[in-house]
Amino acid sequence: MSDKIRVTVWNEFRHEKTHKEVADVYPHGIHGQIATFLGENADIVTRTATLDEPEHGLTDEVLANTDVLIWWGHMAHREVKDEIVDKVQQRILNGMGLIVLHSGHFSKIFRRMMGTNCSLKWREAGERERIWVVDPGHPIAKGLPESFVVPHCEMYGEFFDIPKPDALVFMSWFQGGEVFRSGVAYHRGKGKVFYFRPGHETFPIFYQPEIKQVITNAVRWAAPVCGPYSDLSKAPMVSAPEEFTVSD
Amino acid sequence: MSDKIRVTVWNEFRHEKTHKEVADVYPHGIHGQIATFLGENADIVTRTATLDEPEHGLTDEVLANTDVLIWWGHMAHREVKDEIVDKVQQRILNGMGLIVLHSGHFSKIFRRMMGTNCSLKWREAGERERIWVVDPGHPIAKGLPESFVVPHCEMYGEFFDIPKPDALVFMSWFQGGEVFRSGVAYHRGKGKVFYFRPGHETFPIFYQPEIKQVITNAVRWAAPVCGPYSDLSKAPMVSAPEEFTVSD
Amino acid sequence: MSDKIRVTVWNEFRHEKTHKEVADVYPHGIHGQIATFLGENADIVTRTATLDEPEHGLTDEVLANTDVLIWWGHMAHREVKDEIVDKVQQRILNGMGLIVLHSGHFSKIFRRMMGTNCSLKWREAGERERIWVVDPGHPIAKGLPESFVVPHCEMYGEFFDIPKPDALVFMSWFQGGEVFRSGVAYHRGKGKVFYFRPGHETFPIFYQPEIKQVITNAVRWAAPVCGPYSDLSKAPMVSAPEEFTVSD
Amino acid sequence: MSDKIRVTVWNEFRHEKTHKEVADVYPHGIHGQIATFLGENADIVTRTATLDEPEHGLTDEVLANTDVLIWWGHMAHREVKDEIVDKVQQRILNGMGLIVLHSGHFSKIFRRMMGTNCSLKWREAGERERIWVVDPGHPIAKGLPESFVVPHCEMYGEFFDIPKPDALVFMSWFQGGEVFRSGVAYHRGKGKVFYFRPGHETFPIFYQPEIKQVITNAVRWAAPVCGPYSDLSKAPMVSAPEEFTVSD
Repeated sequence: MSDKIRVTVWNEFRHEKTHKEVADVYPHGIHGQIATFLGENADIVTRTATLDEPEHGLTDEVLANTDVLIWWGHMAHREVKDEIVDKVQQRILNGMGLIVLHSGHFSKIFRRMMGTNCSLKWREAGERERIWVVDPGHPIAKGLPESFVVPHCEMYGEFFDIPKPDALVFMSWFQGGEVFRSGVAYHRGKGKVFYFRPGHETFPIFYQPEIKQVITNAVRWAAPVCGPYSDLSKAPMVSAPEEFTVSD
Repeated sequence: MSDKIRVTVWNEFRHEKTHKEVADVYPHGIHGQIATFLGENADIVTRTATLDEPEHGLTDEVLANTDVLIWWGHMAHREVKDEIVDKVQQRILNGMGLIVLHSGHFSKIFRRMMGTNCSLKWREAGERERIWVVDPGHPIAKGLPESFVVPHCEMYGEFFDIPKPDALVFMSWFQGGEVFRSGVAYHRGKGKVFYFRPGHETFPIFYQPEIKQVITNAVRWAAPVCGPYSDLSKAPMVSAPEEFTVSD
Repeated sequence: MSDKIRVTVWNEFRHEKTHKEVADVYPHGIHGQIATFLGENADIVTRTATLDEPEHGLTDEVLANTDVLIWWGHMAHREVKDEIVDKVQQRILNGMGLIVLHSGHFSKIFRRMMGTNCSLKWREAGERERIWVVDPGHPIAKGLPESFVVPHCEMYGEFFDIPKPDALVFMSWFQGGEVFRSGVAYHRGKGKVFYFRPGHETFPIFYQPEIKQVITNAVRWAAPVCGPYSDLSKAPMVSAPEEFTVSD
Repeated sequence: MSDKIRVTVWNEFRHEKTHKEVADVYPHGIHGQIATFLGENADIVTRTATLDEPEHGLTDEVLANTDVLIWWGHMAHREVKDEIVDKVQQRILNGMGLIVLHSGHFSKIFRRMMGTNCSLKWREAGERERIWVVDPGHPIAKGLPESFVVPHCEMYGEFFDIPKPDALVFMSWFQGGEVFRSGVAYHRGKGKVFYFRPGHETFPIFYQPEIKQVITNAVRWAAPVCGPYSDLSKAPMVSAPEEFTVSD
């Protein structure tokens, strides 16, 4: 039995097979690159799972042994089965962390957890993005500079249709005139959710040191806390705590 | 064309037909009683809708002409059709207010909007509840005393599996030893959601002046604001705002 | 006795007397211009107060008859007397609204209410600012477009050392590469506080329609709610509510 | 150079000298008992400081070498010098954690950090308190049961005049009919603040295992994160980030 944080990196894994320009940047898939840099940390162990595996690679056994799930999807959100989304949601509410990247904003699991459309504006012009830390005491801001640049990105602009975050850690500036809430953190049930905007299948964003730092920080933040309550899917009927008497 | 707030009071309307003790307390249904006291306000007009009507009474025309939807359900949450829940969710994200009462915590629409189980502890012992105002500057606290008593209630206790509220307006104390976040307010998309705990089909809670005050306040708070953005279900591709140039 | 919202517009009123370029833009003072456009609304009545009046124009009588206080200061924050700040703070906690504009971020009253430094980055380059609505259902966003431009502004950039806002209504984009949380709303005690970034003594920002709309919306949002509790400066010893018995 | 969390436990230390019933419960002072149980953890080192030491024991050197400051005060809040409060505030905004216990709600430093009165209702009847976890995924809830009892306590009741917490971790039920937000967490500047209600000078509350667990968890949560930004007391004028050009 290990004390390490067990991370499962999930990838739709379609772009890398069909688009040479994606495979050139991510020869082992985006999931491969993320698992690689996370695995360099002594306190983290990783595995990967992809859409086309049975049960999308997210069997009961895998989910039960995952502390933090990282989600990348883009083209095939609709192919993710609702019964798997149901299971992932319950696992999160029971304590697992979820980290959603970039185009995963439109994944079924993120929309399910948020209860909103998770829609936004977008533009592909290869423009510059500057990401500012706006909650410098948050664990996910550890080791970062005040701001850092992603030289070429796909723009995501407000309004981002998400619930008000429990913590707003990053805000983005884009060359073209937009802003975006780029790093947003939530508690949900016993679990945690973090959405991080940067990332693109044809830009080498997941090789950038600051991006790797953020995702590593987020994994540690999202790891389960051994707190009370279990099986939040039920509403139990209870007696009064022993020392109290209910009467008129 | 009216400036009044158009409220639709939705009720499952089953208990009242099958249980004499419910019909004795609410001879015109819970929806009838709520519509009656709300309709006494000059700035509010009401209609009602129930589960067994076509489309559960929530046709496109009704939803388009509803500013605030009040939801009561208990026995038959599962009978509410998913396609109606989808429409109500989109209408809320586009600006309609939603007020969910008591056992509606387990309704499909509330769970959809929250993204969590919305589970809780419960006990039917007819015990006392004291409700405290904990955000005295909130519009929903208008005209209320510091606290008030519901003499006989069904207990709901923590952990209540909901997202952290944008505003926590009320907290409940129960005779048996539990506490509960009884009045919780959320912004979602362009719309608003308020959950209010008190209410029961066999207790005359919706005749109590403080309860009527809270629901009336909540209707006014939840009425749509004419703000920007439309059709949040889409993620539009955009050009840069005119005065900016994107280039490398 | 009037039902109107009673607004007091407070201005340091120094720049206008000593700098011709300020007086050219605001011949009746910044307070004069704000009072003028607010006073065009049938539900608002205004008065003004300035630093060099006795008690800075904020006598007990004025404060007792102010529903919303608007604050502009820049050069002379230190000249505001602590005993006046004490009184204004207590009046806010007892229900009065406070709206702080631009360089008022460093006023004693705003720092007092926030408990933080309220520091930020700044630059005077006359650059463009684009302000985005990020909470489109908030009352302060009423009637606004998705975004609007201030053609020439003094830049304020993150990190803005403020508590996490209860609502983040606006975010700013600046030509030079920064972002800023430009419209932030707080509940404090029974009162409310709103900070709004735009505004400058030599730019005609308070003549711009969107800016006037925001400040007018903020006045209505910040007006007191008649809720419970009084004299929050005391911690009263209480007996148990009558129906309960405390015993071992 | 140690990696341990350096905790300074501050105590007014008056009750223990003048009231035998306090000294009987806390023979080494409340600070002594807290430092003792914290010091049993391998990752924590403690020191203590008290009101009657020079500079209240909070010299520049002590503050510079404190990661988390724990605060107990009751009778002598007014004797704490404002210049020390100023320094502690700046140290918190620059990253130090602050944990305020029970009657410390009325300390100068807590009121300064909150910007509100921090008033509440109270009653000394030795009644029972039950504390419920309401954010089970929060690090401060680690290892706790769903709820636990303090058999005899001084009651604190709502309205508690504090800003809306960034996280509400605990809520209390009291035998006499009140509720209270008992564990509230805030980010402020680069630092963190946690207020925890239980504790009393004549009840052995700081010997209770759950209470010791909460305070230990809070220390680990409040320890500084090495994030960006320094000297938040200043508002620096800046040039545009290098890659951008500001022009009309």
